[in-house]
Amino acid sequence: MNTIKSITRADMVDIALGGAFLGTGGGGDPYIGRLMAEQAIDEHGPVPVLDVDSLDDDALVVPVCMMGAPTVMLEKLPRGDEAINALRSLEAVLGRKADAVFCIEAGGLNSTIPIAVAATTGLPIIDGDGMGRAFPELQMVSMTMFNVHACPMAMADDKGNAFVLNTVDNLSTEKFARVITVEMGGAGLIALYPMTGAQAKKSILRGSLSLITSIGRIISSEQAANRNPADKLAADLNGMRLFEGRVTDVDRRTEGGFARGQATIEGLEAYQGRSMKLHFQNEFLLAKDDKGQPLAITPDLICLLDLETGQPITTETMAYGYRVIVFGMPCDPKWRSKHGLELVGPAYFGYEEEYQPIEKINN
Amino acid sequence: MNTIKSITRADMVDIALGGAFLGTGGGGDPYIGRLMAEQAIDEHGPVPVLDVDSLDDDALVVPVCMMGAPTVMLEKLPRGDEAINALRSLEAVLGRKADAVFCIEAGGLNSTIPIAVAATTGLPIIDGDGMGRAFPELQMVSMTMFNVHACPMAMADDKGNAFVLNTVDNLSTEKFARVITVEMGGAGLIALYPMTGAQAKKSILRGSLSLITSIGRIISSEQAANRNPADKLAADLNGMRLFEGRVTDVDRRTEGGFARGQATIEGLEAYQGRSMKLHFQNEFLLAKDDKGQPLAITPDLICLLDLETGQPITTETMAYGYRVIVFGMPCDPKWRSKHGLELVGPAYFGYEEEYQPIEKINN
Repeated sequence: MNTIKSITRADMVDIALGGAFLGTGGGGDPYIGRLMAEQAIDEHGPVPVLDVDSLDDDALVVPVCMMGAPTVMLEKLPRGDEAINALRSLEAVLGRKADAVFCIEAGGLNSTIPIAVAATTGLPIIDGDGMGRAFPELQMVSMTMFNVHACPMAMADDKGNAFVLNTVDNLSTEKFARVITVEMGGAGLIALYPMTGAQAKKSILRGSLSLITSIGRIISSEQAANRNPADKLAADLNGMRLFEGRVTDVDRRTEGGFARGQATIEGLEAYQGRSMKLHFQNEFLLAKDDKGQPLAITPDLICLLDLETGQPITTETMAYGYRVIVFGMPCDPKWRSKHGLELVGPAYFGYEEEYQPIEKINN
Repeated sequence: MNTIKSITRADMVDIALGGAFLGTGGGGDPYIGRLMAEQAIDEHGPVPVLDVDSLDDDALVVPVCMMGAPTVMLEKLPRGDEAINALRSLEAVLGRKADAVFCIEAGGLNSTIPIAVAATTGLPIIDGDGMGRAFPELQMVSMTMFNVHACPMAMADDKGNAFVLNTVDNLSTEKFARVITVEMGGAGLIALYPMTGAQAKKSILRGSLSLITSIGRIISSEQAANRNPADKLAADLNGMRLFEGRVTDVDRRTEGGFARGQATIEGLEAYQGRSMKLHFQNEFLLAKDDKGQPLAITPDLICLLDLETGQPITTETMAYGYRVIVFGMPCDPKWRSKHGLELVGPAYFGYEEEYQPIEKINN
């Protein structure tokens, strides 16, 4: 994996592709964010990328992102300035300007929107994130493990409504921000987890933008060579094919501000005669075979790829008849700690399965 | 009606009684707020009452109140400092201190809580309010008719969560604040409609605390003389008995942060053989006879009084078997304007009846 130093317009195709992969089905389609970032880079120039260790300890760094159900984001496009409004509103509360932004999650729309914000505001972006993938809730970030508060948090919508939240803990931030997001119509732009450079060095996951870019390059170069990228992704990312088949049923509901449900996949080729189920809440969180045995469990990554092209498929676009590869990959080791599993393990999402590392299940 | 100049501990009994009457069934039981105000007056002394016209044009005046379903407020008591927290948080946003507080509604808990806040903070309270009664929603105030913005608005709960809202209009303030209140557990303390003295002079309804006190005195002195206060209230307030009977059914639901429903009352004495229905959303909003003809329609006041004692009865305590007087009274003339009826007329609440002034219906 090569470390990137800046983001140009040309990088955005790979970043959106890599972001869709690490979105593990959620976080919204990065395409809209890619267009926003491309336009901002055209107007303001490339975005410098910083290693977190180069930050001053007293720098102010802030992740900016979109919150909501991907099913809604697909139809309710951002107006364009809400993310900047959220950042400016948080800066006003703090009485100082941000020195850098970063991605709260390394997947979906939220891997591209912060690049648009960085370009427009002239701020650098940090090569790191809070999840190493996408997760559905605000408190599910490495920062929570290191006692960084989500608040003060600023929210803005497309109509001009703006909110500042100060909650007693990060789970409360999620709960209040979620009902506000629902009242906004299902999606809003947010700036939160304002932190010092010293806190960022301790708490954020490193190299995320470089990883996203590398993944995007693998997918696009393999596609260009007419090869399915799954094999090279498996080799380079320590990942694995879990299943191949055709989507035969999708049960998807937008409830409580989330896209929730499950999909059934009937096996093809080597997997003929078998089936499996994928459970999701914005992101794919649990893959089980037809005997009910887990194939991969959150926080390990479960990605859905088009069987022919290797293109990542999101939970909100997945539909009957899609021919897919179910691809799995180990999560950042921080998530496998006791605190990490409390935040994003299967029990939090209401699944009965005990967490087992994906490489042990499939060895 | 005598104008009051200050509020002492001894005044609080009458204020709570008058507030329960003008609460028109809603706004929560003023008793809790009375205890809070009495304690604050004991500690800090009586509260000076200001005529709105004595304010400097550039003074900052702020109503402070509780928001939520009265059914919840009954069980979820305020911790005590949330109202002060909401006020301080709004002052921090505005960068200046308030010069006076006032009651957003002249009824229920919100006629007593601001007195506790005034006593504790050492601020005067204005002899006026935004409704001349109680209404269930934030935008239903005379200030909305005069283009005073509800935002910035501060909210605080008993756990320590705090929020600042900046919405595009007052109806949006209500919608967002309502979902936050529900997430708070059904009730929260708020400071909003920050305004100048000049704005207050134009927009707020005058003499509300004096009126509340007068009503409370009538009720308590008639009770002391073993007379039902309804006749004297009718004579002094231009009001009228609409019905007398026994509550035979109450259909009450706490939904969307409101106590909603209807009650059936079977006639007694002069009303024997007849029945009527009372519709409510926190407050009593529509009274209809057994032929479906309206007896009183929002924004005119509908109060429920105990048939023996004249004690006001709230929508959340009303129960099977209560023997009651249904009492009606004309609203402030401002509410009968086109804009007033759009805000608080029957159509807003989903009732089919056209508004007709109570004195015309019952002439």
